[in-house]
Order: sequence, then C-alpha cells, then structure tokens
Amino acid sequence: MDTGITSKTPITLLGLGDMGTALAHSWLAAGHPLTVWNRTREKAEPLVRGGARAADTAAEAIASAAGPVVLCLLDDDSVGETLDGADLNGKDVVNLTTGTPAQAGRRARWVGERGARFLDGGIMAVPPMIGRPETGGYVFYSGDRELFDRHREALEVPAGAEFVGEDPGHAALHDIALLSAMTGMLAGITHAFALVSREKDLDLARFAGLLAEWLGAMAGSSQEMAAQLVSGDYTEGVTSNLAMMAAGNDSLLATARDQGVDSRLLVPYMELMRHRVAQGHGDEGLAGLVSLLPAAH
Amino acid sequence: MDTGITSKTPITLLGLGDMGTALAHSWLAAGHPLTVWNRTREKAEPLVRGGARAADTAAEAIASAAGPVVLCLLDDDSVGETLDGADLNGKDVVNLTTGTPAQAGRRARWVGERGARFLDGGIMAVPPMIGRPETGGYVFYSGDRELFDRHREALEVPAGAEFVGEDPGHAALHDIALLSAMTGMLAGITHAFALVSREKDLDLARFAGLLAEWLGAMAGSSQEMAAQLVSGDYTEGVTSNLAMMAAGNDSLLATARDQGVDSRLLVPYMELMRHRVAQGHGDEGLAGLVSLLPAAH
Ligand SMILES: NC(=O)c1ccc[n+]([C@@H]2O[C@H](COP(=O)([O-])OP(=O)(O)OC[C@H]3O[C@@H](n4cnc5c(N)ncnc54)[C@H](OP(=O)(O)O)[C@@H]3O)[C@@H](O)[C@H]2O)c1
Ligand SMILES: NC(=O)c1ccc[n+]([C@@H]2O[C@H](COP(=O)([O-])OP(=O)(O)OC[C@H]3O[C@@H](n4cnc5c(N)ncnc54)[C@H](OP(=O)(O)O)[C@@H]3O)[C@@H](O)[C@H]2O)c1
Repeated sequence: MDTGITSKTPITLLGLGDMGTALAHSWLAAGHPLTVWNRTREKAEPLVRGGARAADTAAEAIASAAGPVVLCLLDDDSVGETLDGADLNGKDVVNLTTGTPAQAGRRARWVGERGARFLDGGIMAVPPMIGRPETGGYVFYSGDRELFDRHREALEVPAGAEFVGEDPGHAALHDIALLSAMTGMLAGITHAFALVSREKDLDLARFAGLLAEWLGAMAGSSQEMAAQLVSGDYTEGVTSNLAMMAAGNDSLLATARDQGVDSRLLVPYMELMRHRVAQGHGDEGLAGLVSLLPAAH
Repeated sequence: MDTGITSKTPITLLGLGDMGTALAHSWLAAGHPLTVWNRTREKAEPLVRGGARAADTAAEAIASAAGPVVLCLLDDDSVGETLDGADLNGKDVVNLTTGTPAQAGRRARWVGERGARFLDGGIMAVPPMIGRPETGGYVFYSGDRELFDRHREALEVPAGAEFVGEDPGHAALHDIALLSAMTGMLAGITHAFALVSREKDLDLARFAGLLAEWLGAMAGSSQEMAAQLVSGDYTEGVTSNLAMMAAGNDSLLATARDQGVDSRLLVPYMELMRHRVAQGHGDEGLAGLVSLLPAAH
C-alpha cells in the first residue's frame, strides 16, 4: 500500500537470486522505497515494474543509499567482489549472505576499515516464508547493535529479527549451529525411513506424521541439555539416564540388522554414549557428550 | 473414583518397575480392578494399599485373569521367564515390554502356540506422562486387532493408543524407528551445543529454545520425504534441493573446524549427500538418500 507519500526507510538491496527477490517483494509490498542491483540485470525488471529503482552498478546503488545497504549474494566471495571499489564511508551495511562466523568477523573488520557500520544476518527461512510472519521464519542478527535498533522496523518486514550479540560472527554461528543440528535430525529421519520403507502394509504418510510429532516433542531435550551445560551438573533433572539409553541402542542396532539397514548414520553417536558410560557417567543426561566432541588440537 | 460397583475391565499386570508402576496407578485411578505381580514382591505394597490385589506367582495371576494380561518387564528374556510354565490357554496377552520386531514376532507365535491371543505394544512416553493424556504420550500397538478393539477403552487409560498393523512386529518397528530418528536428532543437537558452548557471551538457554523450535519446524520435512518415497519421484515438491544443501555442508564443516569441534557425528550423512549428488541427483529432495542406506547382503 504505497500512498506515494512515505516516511518508510529506503532500502538498497544487492542480489536478486531466489532469496533476494523474495526480500525485495516484501519491502515493496510494505511501502519501502527500494533500490535494487543484480549482476544479471534482467532479474530486476519485475521489481522495477513493481516500483523499485534499478541501479546500473553496485557502486552507484551504494553511493545513492540513504538507508541500509542489504546484501543477499551467493557467498562471501561474491560479497567481496560486489563491494570492491564502492565508497562505503558512512554507510550501514547489512549482510544477509550465508557464511561462517570467521567470514562474518573478517567482513566486519573489512567494512569497518572503509568507514561503514556492519550487521551480519543468517536467514532461518526459505523464500516462500519471506514476508509471511505467520510462517515463523526469522533472521539471526549480530554486530552493530545501534545499526540494528535504528533499522529494526525495516529489517522485520521480510521475517522476524533475533539479535544474538555484538560479536559479528554470532549470527552465522547460530545459523550454522541450527543447520548442523538439522543435519543430524535428517540423518535420523533417513535411517527411520530406511527401517520401515520396505514394509508393504505400512502407511508411510501416517508414519511420517507420527515421526515429525515425536521429534518435535523430543527436541525439547535441548533445554535440559542447556540447563546442565550452564550448571556444569550433568545429572541435574535427568529423566532418561545415559546407561539406559545406551543399553537400548542394542535393540536399535539389532532391528537395523534385521531390516537390512546399514547403521552408519547412528553409530558415531552411539559410540560417544558408550564411551561416556564406560567413563562411569551412566547416571548423567546427554550434556556430558558435548564435552567428548571437541577435536584434539 | 472406585464406587465399589464397577463394570470396568479387570487388568492383570506383570512387572512393577518404573513404567509398570506408573501403568498400575493409572488403572487404579480410573477404577479398573487390578491384579499385580512383580518378581520383587515389595514393589506391590503401595499398590495393594491403593486397592490392587497382589498375586503370589505370575502363573496364579494369569490363571485368575478375566481380562487382559499386561506385561511390562525389562526385556524379552524376562517375558519368557515370567510366562514359562503358566497356563495361557484362552488368555489375552498384551506385551508392553520394549523389544525388536523380530522378538515380537517370535513371542506372538510362542503365545499363539499356547492358545492365547497376542498384542504387542511400544510405549512412546516416560513414566511421568502415564495417565496424563495432555502430555501426548501414546503406545504403538500391533498384532491381534480384535483383542485391541475389545480392550481399547482399558488400553487407552495409561496413554493414547495407535494401532499400526496386524503384523505383531509393527509396533516395535515404529517404536525403534522413532527412537532411531531421535538418536540422529540428539547427535545433531550435541554437535550444535559443541559449536556454541565455549562462547562466553552466548545465552545457552535462549539458544536451546531457538534450536528446539527450529528442529520442531524442520521435522515436518519427513512428510515431504514420505510423499516422495510413496510416489517414487524424489524431485516432487522439492523446496531445498540436495545440491544446494550439499554445498552448504562446506560452511558447516569449516565452522566446526574453526570452533575446534570434531564433525564425526555429521560426516556420514554428508557423505551420503555428496554421493547422491555425484550420482547426478542434485535436483532431488532428501528421499533418495534412504535408498543408499540398505546394507549389502
Ligand atoms: N534460498 C534459500 O532457501 C535460502 C535460505 C536461507 C539463506 N539463503 C542465503 O541467501 C543467499 C542468497 O541465496 P539465493 O537462494 O538467493 O541464491 P541464488 O538464487 O543462487 O542467487 C545467488 C545470487 O548471488 C549473485 N551472485 C553470485 N555470484 C556473484 C558474484 N561473483 N558477484 C555478484 N553477484 C553474484 C547472483 O547473481 P546472478 O543473478 O547474476 O547470478 C544472485 O543474485 C545465500 O547466501 C543463501 O545461503 C538462502
Ligand atoms: N521407563 C521408561 O522411560 C520407559 C519408556 C518406554 C518404555 N519403557 C519400557 O518399559 C519396560 C519396563 O521399563 P521400566 O522403566 O519399568 O524398567 P525397570 O524400572 O528397570 O523395571 C524392570 C522390571 O522388569 C522386572 N524384571 C527384570 N528381569 C526380570 C526377570 N528375569 N523376570 C521377571 N521380572 C524381571 C523387574 O522386576 P524386579 O523389580 O524384581 O527387578 C521390574 O519389574 C522396558 O521394556 C522399557 O524399555 C520404559
């Protein structure tokens, strides 16, 4: 609902891939003046028809920016190429390109040396969730707190905003940590489907529903783990002890064998459990396993 | 609320460990006449004070059973020892002892040969959830459908009841499959905590809440996988393609390295992803990975 007269923060957006395009549409729909740039110019056309201005170069887009300069590019290398040669002095740079915490830290310094403020973001959503708050998508932000507070309203247009610290790497760390946990969950789901997928009389859709519900409920055990990690007492509030869970692994492995399923996705974690029980910690919960993961330097 | 006059199904329960005791209390509270037996007799005393009858032997408890004989013992071996020598002819046996699908199948035959009907169950709850429907706990049941229907009301007293097939092994298969998926998820959560746990200025409790929420939302991808496995078209409805996810793994591994965390819990699944992409299936979703797991016989 653009009335023509707007006091909304103007946005400059560099990068119109699937995600950048979704971000652009959400800001346009919310009435923010929008300048866009993309390496491949054609992707800007539909947005120009929707009211955006297309800049000819990234440097020009940045030079004319009166509000935050948002980057949503493939990776940190493309961010470097895109910002190279532009005058960043006095600008507010918001980088929504996925990367590692170390890349975010280096980028923050690089941007700071050029006289700009820096905020890094990690997007916990897929493009169809952008501009639809009811889907629960959000962005982790870290870095310059003042920049975040000043532009918070505009930043919350595409998705929720979770500020997780002044360390510019913390948004990426949260992003990568959640994606890592999801990777483990997907491995478990894959094993579960392998166990049941050859049973002809089993309703896979119903199974999937029960599985999703179960994992959703059991994901809450991360809160028990966090409490134990904070207190340092790994037996605190234990509802299922490690020894019992480790003993149960035998049934999991035997069932996999009987169903002709390779257990390689589960074995490394089971080995951690076994090791911790052998160390005499069978009465603990799961938090003690975290201490077994750090690599030897 | 036992009025003294009851038409509720009488229950015979063998096994008063943590779980058996919780089951017993729920049936007593719901007004079911209850006969209990436990190898270690003392555990029956509080229940006797609550209105249960304690049998001297398992065989005597079974002989006098006018309703279902429920077993909740440590493992399948203890079930064998407990039923050995008892007259099962004409009885309804409900086994809530955790085991493998193969054990359930063998037990069903063994019980059938002795003239009894058999229903196997896998409990998806911990003792504090028993008798509290609002907690969402339930029991997978499989085997004799008539037995299930006849005693359904009594079986639903401790927790919800999900009948998953006449194959007596299917309850255990569902049980083990959900526990296996949970094992993967816990591995992922462990890796995620290892990544963040040495960051002093990071609020672990808040992180755990965001992590649980994220995993709960992403657990829904099991439904997309099920649809693909049923149709056999692994590109159907893909919202995140395998090639993109596999490329993202580099950031996950680099971050783990930077944080000094060993990636052994995630690598086997990443290897499956890489292998499937190398086979030319980068445009698929995750269902194709299931086919890579069956062991070579
Ligand atoms: N899509 C998702 O589900 C999702 C979810 C969360 C986070 N993200 C993150 O959002 C970012 C963008 O993702 P996307 O889905 O939009 O990716 P995409 O569709 O592949 O688009 C990539 C964008 O980067 C540009 N680009 C690539 N290399 C460049 C270079 N050297 N110089 C300048 N521009 C370059 C591309 O320009 P051209 O058009 O000229 O190729 C395009 O605008 C990524 O960091 C991604 O991890 C995506
Ligand atoms: N607790 C949970 O969170 C949970 C959740 C889901 C499923 N389950 C399942 O429920 C079942 C019982 O679990 P639980 O937590 O009650 O275990 P528990 O507290 O360890 O109790 C074990 C029970 O088995 C009996 N027992 C063991 N060996 C026996 C034998 N050789 N002959 C006769 N009785 C024997 C024990 O009798 P004594 O008292 O004489 O030792 C006791 O009654 C298990 O299969 C478990 O996997 C438990």
